[in-house]
Amino acid sequence: MFENPETTNLESLGEFGLIDHLTKQIELKNPSSIKGVGDDAAVLKTPDSKNTLVSTDLLLEGIHFDLSYFPLKHLGYKAVVVNLSDIYAMNAKPKQITVSIGLSSKFSLEAVEELYGGIELACKHYQVDLVGGDTTSSKQGLIISVTAIGEADENEIVYRNGAKEMDLLCVSGDLGGAYAGYQLLEREKRVYINNPQLQPDLSGNDYILERQLKPEARKDVIDILKALKIQPTAMIDISDGLSSEVIHIAKQSNVGITVYEEKIPIDPTTYNMARELDLDPTLCALSGGEDYELLFTINQSDFEKIKEHPDLTVIGFCTKKEEGINLISKSGIKHELKAQGWKAF
Amino acid sequence: MFENPETTNLESLGEFGLIDHLTKQIELKNPSSIKGVGDDAAVLKTPDSKNTLVSTDLLLEGIHFDLSYFPLKHLGYKAVVVNLSDIYAMNAKPKQITVSIGLSSKFSLEAVEELYGGIELACKHYQVDLVGGDTTSSKQGLIISVTAIGEADENEIVYRNGAKEMDLLCVSGDLGGAYAGYQLLEREKRVYINNPQLQPDLSGNDYILERQLKPEARKDVIDILKALKIQPTAMIDISDGLSSEVIHIAKQSNVGITVYEEKIPIDPTTYNMARELDLDPTLCALSGGEDYELLFTINQSDFEKIKEHPDLTVIGFCTKKEEGINLISKSGIKHELKAQGWKAF
Repeated sequence: MFENPETTNLESLGEFGLIDHLTKQIELKNPSSIKGVGDDAAVLKTPDSKNTLVSTDLLLEGIHFDLSYFPLKHLGYKAVVVNLSDIYAMNAKPKQITVSIGLSSKFSLEAVEELYGGIELACKHYQVDLVGGDTTSSKQGLIISVTAIGEADENEIVYRNGAKEMDLLCVSGDLGGAYAGYQLLEREKRVYINNPQLQPDLSGNDYILERQLKPEARKDVIDILKALKIQPTAMIDISDGLSSEVIHIAKQSNVGITVYEEKIPIDPTTYNMARELDLDPTLCALSGGEDYELLFTINQSDFEKIKEHPDLTVIGFCTKKEEGINLISKSGIKHELKAQGWKAF
Repeated sequence: MFENPETTNLESLGEFGLIDHLTKQIELKNPSSIKGVGDDAAVLKTPDSKNTLVSTDLLLEGIHFDLSYFPLKHLGYKAVVVNLSDIYAMNAKPKQITVSIGLSSKFSLEAVEELYGGIELACKHYQVDLVGGDTTSSKQGLIISVTAIGEADENEIVYRNGAKEMDLLCVSGDLGGAYAGYQLLEREKRVYINNPQLQPDLSGNDYILERQLKPEARKDVIDILKALKIQPTAMIDISDGLSSEVIHIAKQSNVGITVYEEKIPIDPTTYNMARELDLDPTLCALSGGEDYELLFTINQSDFEKIKEHPDLTVIGFCTKKEEGINLISKSGIKHELKAQGWKAF
């Protein structure tokens, strides 16, 4: 992967040289970014009427990503996007990020530039400023820690705990694609390891590969909801899979939730790849995760506003807590939803 | 280290169980902490007149700490302190932190509780709220990423770039102790590896061991300066060693700086241990790092206010840029100061 003979050794730059090199071109875009990289701390000025939101994620090589098929530029982009998604999930706008990186000696300067290229691209696309971070050597492969900072009017912030009985449960986009993409990449990796002469067969699967390798955060959904004058009662982004996010909303809102399997939006590419890989497409949506779609509840009176929207789907509704958290299968059988989620340990 | 037979396996709790367990007792102390752990993002409300400051650090096992002699509770404490130090170095007050942790399977729940015990102790001591984070498994040892968030009046914030010609260069406390403590621990580790029957000989060295294992951030110095009505012209905390911090202030402020070796405050314990280990005590101060003292410049007119203060020392002054960055040795010889600092790669 890093066999280009014309690469530059990180040691020749040193820590301060590397930071200078990577950050010299940064221009702050947001008026709230007073001081970015280059001091002990970044300085921000949130408008007086706004609250500040902070979210953070830690991504580790071998746990969250596999560099054998994850291009570094995409990885940088995704590391930012997954954090911004958390800010959007509060119905807020991200404005700044900090990025800390641990690098093992196998990385050349050019490889680090690729990674930062992806980070910068995400900053540009989502109009956020890179204002700080930390860079260190690592004995343990690549480590990326991103913190995102956003802002929102206090009365616009949407928590996980506001869903009420009879509210509708909605989701943006479609689900399971990132997981199907992941499974496809893993299959082709195994094929390649067993027979390096074979080229990976990824044709026709651009959509699910992009869902895995270059996901987007649903900035547009926040804008759509605002334009439709809908204030969700609860919201969360789908990082661990639909099941565990539904359970989070239900538990924190103290309600039950019923989800209809037939309503869960799944793209045909996802469906076909799941079948090809002997996976249940619904299970990919429920437990796959990494879709970064928004799951939210709305008052029934808002139903008319969203029912025709091509990118928003009502998949269930909230009940009394006693009714529990259930999936009604396509054949009409009720199953209790369990957090498969992502097994951290 | 983790041989207690009554330990609890992390796998039995799962990610969500672990987070619940570790965060259930958190009480938010600061009025600016609106919402802490438990949603997609934390929500903060900075007072209208204040700016927000953000600083972040990444600490890796085998690079920044050695668990063979670093107690987990101390490590948790230090991980917080090094971040708070960056906020104080802006003449600001830290209010919140987020903590992300990567844990390998060798850690028991009890070990993680020790680590969090240290984190909580630091939060209590410095009156900051733990408002968020991420917890994940790691294949590669312990990873800790902390982000600190603080606040300050805009006109009180001190950057690295405000030093002027003729300003005095001052430092709090004494230097080199953390490095001497580190070298002592490394020596005793080598002795122990070669002969496990020998008990480590750490007696009489509490001060330097504490400088390494349980450093404090100089919250008190910020208060002292305010009480003395001194607004530093530039400030930085000493994490990499005096040399590289002096160079940061000089370069960013576009001045030269002259430091007098004889003025550099070094504790007798540090001095004696350095000699015992065949190290130059001055070099420990210049290049050792991890002292987390504050290095700052003040206008000469403030000299009378600090000259008698037992915990603040004038060690040099700012010059025209052309005169460079120099150390005047005890024998009167001028040496150019070079960033030894910490070699990241």
